[in-house]
Amino acid sequence: MIEDKNQNKTPLSELGEFGLIDHLTKGFKIKHASTIKGIGDDAAVLDFKNEQIVVTTDMLVEGVHFDLSYMPLKHLGYKAMVVNLSDVYAMNAQASQITVSIAVSNRFPLEALEALYSGIETAANMYDVDVVGGDTTTSTAGLIISITAIGYVNSKEVIYRDGAKPDDLLVVTGDLGAAYMGLQVLEREKEVFKVNPQNQPDLESYTYIIERQLKPEARKDIVKLLKDLDVKPTSMIDISDGLSSEIMHLCKHSNVGCDLYENKIPLDPQVISTCEEFNIDSTTVALNGGEDYELLFTVSQEDFTKIKANPNFSIIGFMKEKSAGMHLITRAETSIPLKAQGWNSFNS
Amino acid sequence: MIEDKNQNKTPLSELGEFGLIDHLTKGFKIKHASTIKGIGDDAAVLDFKNEQIVVTTDMLVEGVHFDLSYMPLKHLGYKAMVVNLSDVYAMNAQASQITVSIAVSNRFPLEALEALYSGIETAANMYDVDVVGGDTTTSTAGLIISITAIGYVNSKEVIYRDGAKPDDLLVVTGDLGAAYMGLQVLEREKEVFKVNPQNQPDLESYTYIIERQLKPEARKDIVKLLKDLDVKPTSMIDISDGLSSEIMHLCKHSNVGCDLYENKIPLDPQVISTCEEFNIDSTTVALNGGEDYELLFTVSQEDFTKIKANPNFSIIGFMKEKSAGMHLITRAETSIPLKAQGWNSFNS
Repeated sequence: MIEDKNQNKTPLSELGEFGLIDHLTKGFKIKHASTIKGIGDDAAVLDFKNEQIVVTTDMLVEGVHFDLSYMPLKHLGYKAMVVNLSDVYAMNAQASQITVSIAVSNRFPLEALEALYSGIETAANMYDVDVVGGDTTTSTAGLIISITAIGYVNSKEVIYRDGAKPDDLLVVTGDLGAAYMGLQVLEREKEVFKVNPQNQPDLESYTYIIERQLKPEARKDIVKLLKDLDVKPTSMIDISDGLSSEIMHLCKHSNVGCDLYENKIPLDPQVISTCEEFNIDSTTVALNGGEDYELLFTVSQEDFTKIKANPNFSIIGFMKEKSAGMHLITRAETSIPLKAQGWNSFNS
Repeated sequence: MIEDKNQNKTPLSELGEFGLIDHLTKGFKIKHASTIKGIGDDAAVLDFKNEQIVVTTDMLVEGVHFDLSYMPLKHLGYKAMVVNLSDVYAMNAQASQITVSIAVSNRFPLEALEALYSGIETAANMYDVDVVGGDTTTSTAGLIISITAIGYVNSKEVIYRDGAKPDDLLVVTGDLGAAYMGLQVLEREKEVFKVNPQNQPDLESYTYIIERQLKPEARKDIVKLLKDLDVKPTSMIDISDGLSSEIMHLCKHSNVGCDLYENKIPLDPQVISTCEEFNIDSTTVALNGGEDYELLFTVSQEDFTKIKANPNFSIIGFMKEKSAGMHLITRAETSIPLKAQGWNSFNS
């Protein structure tokens, strides 16, 4: 739908495996002093001196995590990077290196992989990470991308999921639910396109939510901002599966309960209007939509003044004793137990 | 063919994603002081103090890299680990951590993943590495395994592909071609099984080559042996794609040529007899078979006395000026240019 169909096609079989890797990564530059050796040996060699290292990995599967009928390959490459980098930032670490493995069927021409890698390179430059390794192989079915991201952090700065205490404030960055609603719009347009391929969709009133779905960003800026504000969260996690599920992770790992206030959940006006159009409850979307890649963290009450007026942060609740349980306090001031699928689960 | 068909089956849908990871990795123990935090947060946290870090990644795809009709899942898990660890040892490094991502279709019951992970755990214990992360997701088609291995090495000890000099000796560990011939036997038995499922194959005379295919080992012992012998190779690589291709990598990266002696290539008697039975040239198999996971390295002539009588090593040639090219010196003492597919390529 968005992809350029008029590109020249080069079969992958024209290049061998080594030729393919060389070709796809030849423009990639090494930016970090910690990257001693990048692509081109049995393994990459890194040197972090006295820093601790964080490592995270994620796999994206065609037909499960993305649909190429509305996800341009360049965006997919970018998003695959962001998904992993977000986990590094959730440790309060700096991302520095990444490896990219791709399995691809012969139906993809070289130009498709070039588009994918151009998104990977754009993200590598945007987030200042070195692509130091990878594997390119044949797939019998669709496209599979497996990325491992590496970062570094001073041992005193690393933030786990398990440090939240009762009375800590629960804080989220940005706004929630937009990526999910963007997906709903794209899925609807795909159905329209199937019926009438000549139809030109008018997506102007959905630009923000579609961008949040197709080209999300990871909150590298928040790691720096927290440092500048001299705030060290007591626990932190990134929001990939939906606010509700991530809050429950923090509570479970930290052995605490929490109250989450429905009226404090940050929503973009486009999310609210699109939810109305689709007749979906916007709180449900924020709680369970996922793919927001915002950061969710807890801070001690002492840090309240440092963060309260910052437009990057929304204080959405506070932690309680474990015995108090995990609840959503609705706008009607009723208290409902949080579930991983919210109180009104999706049927999708 | 080897798999137990009478196991109880639990659909994966009975466990959520988090339940699945917890279930599969609950028996895994952390063995390294450098593993500060393993599975269970956004990322693993590692601390290597002053050592350099090596990182390598590989993806295995069902129908491309393995065939489940004769590859038991436990062996597959073990082999997927070995393939990656071999790359760490090829840097002269110690392997210490590993992440495992798996995409799997619903046709696999929980017990199949348990078998796969039991092979991963066996290898983790055998090679003394910590499983510190991973991802488990749905696949629309077959099984895909993506592994990233991490190791450490003192900066003075790391060995790249680019240090070989003219007159250096070319050395290989173990013997070559067995994994490929094991695969030929297994493929033949699969065809027999299709025609006559009641047939009980007699594989006794192929035990070594089948084990080399189904349960290869990585040469961790060689890294220690080289240290004990006080030998630091000038270049090193592991043999995954076949001797010929790996020699050409060393020559290309080091800007040298080489002479490889056919009569010095180490072959197991079972490889020789099975090659005769299949009417395949054993040198071709050694040069192009692949999946041997032996180490190929170059040492300066000064180290000759330290390695010459060691049964782990075969001196198979020596490096020359780049202008001399890369040649195989046959038993008939003719000189034939080396090709990535050898002088007589496979038709498979």
